[in-house]
Amino acid sequence: MSSDATGMFITETHTDAALWQFRVSKMLLEGKTKYQTYQICEVPRFGKSLFLDYNIQTSLLDEYIFHECMSQPAMTLHPHPKRVVVCGGGEGATLREALKHNTVTQATMVDIDQELVDMVKVHMKEWHQGAFEDPRTTLLHTDARAWLQAEKGQAWDVILSDLPNPHEEGPGQMLFTKEYFQICADALSEDGILALQAGSASENYPECFACCVKTLREVFPHVAGYYGMVNTFFQPWAFVLASKSLDPMDLTEAEIASRFDARGVKNRYYTPRFHHACFTLPEYLLEAIANARILTDAEPFVWTA
Amino acid sequence: MSSDATGMFITETHTDAALWQFRVSKMLLEGKTKYQTYQICEVPRFGKSLFLDYNIQTSLLDEYIFHECMSQPAMTLHPHPKRVVVCGGGEGATLREALKHNTVTQATMVDIDQELVDMVKVHMKEWHQGAFEDPRTTLLHTDARAWLQAEKGQAWDVILSDLPNPHEEGPGQMLFTKEYFQICADALSEDGILALQAGSASENYPECFACCVKTLREVFPHVAGYYGMVNTFFQPWAFVLASKSLDPMDLTEAEIASRFDARGVKNRYYTPRFHHACFTLPEYLLEAIANARILTDAEPFVWTA
Amino acid sequence: MSSDATGMFITETHTDAALWQFRVSKMLLEGKTKYQTYQICEVPRFGKSLFLDYNIQTSLLDEYIFHECMSQPAMTLHPHPKRVVVCGGGEGATLREALKHNTVTQATMVDIDQELVDMVKVHMKEWHQGAFEDPRTTLLHTDARAWLQAEKGQAWDVILSDLPNPHEEGPGQMLFTKEYFQICADALSEDGILALQAGSASENYPECFACCVKTLREVFPHVAGYYGMVNTFFQPWAFVLASKSLDPMDLTEAEIASRFDARGVKNRYYTPRFHHACFTLPEYLLEAIANARILTDAEPFVWTA
Amino acid sequence: MSSDATGMFITETHTDAALWQFRVSKMLLEGKTKYQTYQICEVPRFGKSLFLDYNIQTSLLDEYIFHECMSQPAMTLHPHPKRVVVCGGGEGATLREALKHNTVTQATMVDIDQELVDMVKVHMKEWHQGAFEDPRTTLLHTDARAWLQAEKGQAWDVILSDLPNPHEEGPGQMLFTKEYFQICADALSEDGILALQAGSASENYPECFACCVKTLREVFPHVAGYYGMVNTFFQPWAFVLASKSLDPMDLTEAEIASRFDARGVKNRYYTPRFHHACFTLPEYLLEAIANARILTDAEPFVWTA
Repeated sequence: MSSDATGMFITETHTDAALWQFRVSKMLLEGKTKYQTYQICEVPRFGKSLFLDYNIQTSLLDEYIFHECMSQPAMTLHPHPKRVVVCGGGEGATLREALKHNTVTQATMVDIDQELVDMVKVHMKEWHQGAFEDPRTTLLHTDARAWLQAEKGQAWDVILSDLPNPHEEGPGQMLFTKEYFQICADALSEDGILALQAGSASENYPECFACCVKTLREVFPHVAGYYGMVNTFFQPWAFVLASKSLDPMDLTEAEIASRFDARGVKNRYYTPRFHHACFTLPEYLLEAIANARILTDAEPFVWTA
Repeated sequence: MSSDATGMFITETHTDAALWQFRVSKMLLEGKTKYQTYQICEVPRFGKSLFLDYNIQTSLLDEYIFHECMSQPAMTLHPHPKRVVVCGGGEGATLREALKHNTVTQATMVDIDQELVDMVKVHMKEWHQGAFEDPRTTLLHTDARAWLQAEKGQAWDVILSDLPNPHEEGPGQMLFTKEYFQICADALSEDGILALQAGSASENYPECFACCVKTLREVFPHVAGYYGMVNTFFQPWAFVLASKSLDPMDLTEAEIASRFDARGVKNRYYTPRFHHACFTLPEYLLEAIANARILTDAEPFVWTA
Repeated sequence: MSSDATGMFITETHTDAALWQFRVSKMLLEGKTKYQTYQICEVPRFGKSLFLDYNIQTSLLDEYIFHECMSQPAMTLHPHPKRVVVCGGGEGATLREALKHNTVTQATMVDIDQELVDMVKVHMKEWHQGAFEDPRTTLLHTDARAWLQAEKGQAWDVILSDLPNPHEEGPGQMLFTKEYFQICADALSEDGILALQAGSASENYPECFACCVKTLREVFPHVAGYYGMVNTFFQPWAFVLASKSLDPMDLTEAEIASRFDARGVKNRYYTPRFHHACFTLPEYLLEAIANARILTDAEPFVWTA
Repeated sequence: MSSDATGMFITETHTDAALWQFRVSKMLLEGKTKYQTYQICEVPRFGKSLFLDYNIQTSLLDEYIFHECMSQPAMTLHPHPKRVVVCGGGEGATLREALKHNTVTQATMVDIDQELVDMVKVHMKEWHQGAFEDPRTTLLHTDARAWLQAEKGQAWDVILSDLPNPHEEGPGQMLFTKEYFQICADALSEDGILALQAGSASENYPECFACCVKTLREVFPHVAGYYGMVNTFFQPWAFVLASKSLDPMDLTEAEIASRFDARGVKNRYYTPRFHHACFTLPEYLLEAIANARILTDAEPFVWTA
């Protein structure tokens, strides 16, 4: 019964407004890497789900929404995405989405937590679906920022930055700053595109997203926020696309459909007809952007949600 | 601190997948009517909030999103909305939104719970903002369905059905059926429009919305689902617009802007540029509609979220 | 930090007054038998703990308190306990305590849930400590009541009834009735003794204990309630000793010490000096007994805690 | 229904092992003093209850157990208690219990939180039952330690120290140290007696009690721990009696009964027959005392439960 108080739960917080308790109907796997604790478990209706440090990351219910949003707008906007970097993205699903585009010849995923990715390979096949074995894939376990810095001038087409939220002194904090975004820009080609997950798109906690947009505008000429409705996160989730020469608003439904056809891409959430809805932001996000500040290594974002 | 376990909370459930605990930083008022218990309290970041039977109904953070969605699309689509009915809508904010249109000459609100509305008048002024005292307003405390049935042929322009979810044997259950929708149609003019709140627009629980759309299509020629991002509900919320002669997809941004100007309407969420985004549904909702069934008095919806 | 809201928890209820959430720092094993679900996990400060159907059963912190109370008063009161029956007692710790008395020649444990006991043998060695392999032990997996009924006239010395609380239509409900107690009496010798766990000894929920005492007085001449402070249950826990010829109040501290010495028994909670404190009941329990009713197969107890 | 997850709750923690959520069926009063926040509410089965800083303090179910334990052993042991001090004890129930002894001529209560006591006078009459209006009562709102220090040599008969747990830098922390206990001793007569509430008597968290006993033995010749089963705290609760010349173990049941008769005292928990059970400590508490340390102003107790 839906309102039964007894059971097993994983609890996370959403700002200081609320606690969310996810019901665990079956614990599948629990462990700890050098960087984080993890649980893989069954949650009613959400299905198999991953928690990191007791925060839900993804569930089979709608992982496609998050991962299509993470990858598809940037991949689709680029006219011929051959060489792609995925920063973070441990589940392998962001990589999987990038590889859908048959234009891709090289996909390098840089995730520092090898223990987690090794676990994912075995226990989360529904997510990566073989992406780690794709001959185009190179998998590296090192610091994404340091690695990208060394790629300066290497003219990558697309960077997909699927990184942990910028908790204070957490591994993600310096991956949401102007300096990091400049490192990305330097590693991209002249029409290169960066996409990142940028936190909540809810009215309760839009600050991280808003600061990312404002900061990216210091580095890239075209910056557009968008969002996807990730029920697993109990809120719409925000992403930002930052581009050196191409404007996502110029893409028509017909052009997107044509590119999907040519590249063999089939999506369920980010469809040609849905592109503009994703990029049309509610007023409260525009207001939050107007009030946001520039994030720097010296004054990074401090996640409190 | 956001992750402090101690404190006062109101807990509600979201299907059998999760419990949500809202932190109560201050209890303002608690009571019980013939129909329901209520609490008005301060929730951090959400501000003043109303709970009915321990389910959050509305908060100052984003009540405007829910209530603009509830009222504005139908009111705006109608070329000259003069006579409007609000069914339910106890907070007075759906009424407030309808009255924004200076074309309105008569607004009748029918909410069965007089004790609740009397409390709202005193303690929730931020919601009704004087709407109950508007000379165009008539306030009735009776059964909405029975009242509407008696209005057959009275050619109302717009009906806004802001009613409780169809819990088993709850007061709302027979207000989400084909028979009820036909009663609405019979009380509307030839170009009359009905709008209703229709439950969750999340992928986890789209069934109520989907069945409403499918059922309304049995009664009205133009039926369009749309949604608003209500963070207070931790999910996008669904609405349906059902219309006898007018199609909301025909409204252009310019036309909406022009009507707002002419009628003195100012919105924050449902703005001219946002109209189409609201009505563009993700694939999972279209699939849910395809799989939905017709709701009838004999086989009504049974809410289990 | 002790007040951190995030984490993994198992929640149980204590009447309708409270929910208890036990923090799970490590899940060790989870499974399901024909009769119940189980989790073995680490709880901070409590250590390794067993939950059945999301109710905590025992933890390493103080399992000795429960199991000494379950076994030792009856075993000690009997002047020469040779043949002992344990009904239920899946963890094997009640059996372990009975076997401490070197007078025992035959200990038969009857627990219907073979899958659970098989799991316990492997994963809960801290509890049984080899009791299942003791040559004096016979382990049966059948219905305890039916088995005892067939033992009529077999003159067992002690029966230890360590059975699940009498939930409505649960496996324990007919094991707390006058008819069951008569079956026990018939299987006991002329100076035989029955002990049972009898639910909470708290002022909030003394009803089950009180009815057990009252009902046992219909069958046995000597009936005495006692309790142990089981912190794992967040309340004192009640037991009843029912005896055909011996009165526990007649046992002196010196006599208990002498029996312990002679039989090689060492306890930590039920010590000679603590015997009388255990059997001295607070007024509220005496009042509850005065107000209790007789439990029968036709009108058994219905557990609602 | 007892396992219904929805509702209003106040959550507190019990070490890092567990969270306790008390169901609030009705909020009666909420407020904030200079020192603490408070809620008075109805909890099912517990009845009217007081929470301070979201920790339950007392409920009508069993406040008599806590307050009889707090006052009666010391009052009863003293052969002619005339002049009594209550430190803390905001609800007025410790005072009420002291005044039961008709030997008392002067009862001075020193509680720093005047706002709280003023509220209690109006809203918690079930607790004080007029004790504040008793002509023998003097009520002071000042720091208890400073006030007692000035009473050196004033030869009070009994001091009842009903003070908040020694949270780090909390108002109670310096009221559980050797220096404070010496101040009490100096304010007592030659056969004076001090009693204090000393935290949990559970096996999970006996440290505060154990340290209090050990520390008091540095100051008083006779120190005896005892406990009461306070279900509202979900654990047995510990107290310590420290006495300059009288040993509580010397009191017989008959002598207690005789004093109760002579002084007009009627109790429900601390009855003549129950005295020895209260003072008989389980082994784990004796072990904890053996392992405890001396508390001083320089190294006070730090409460982490």
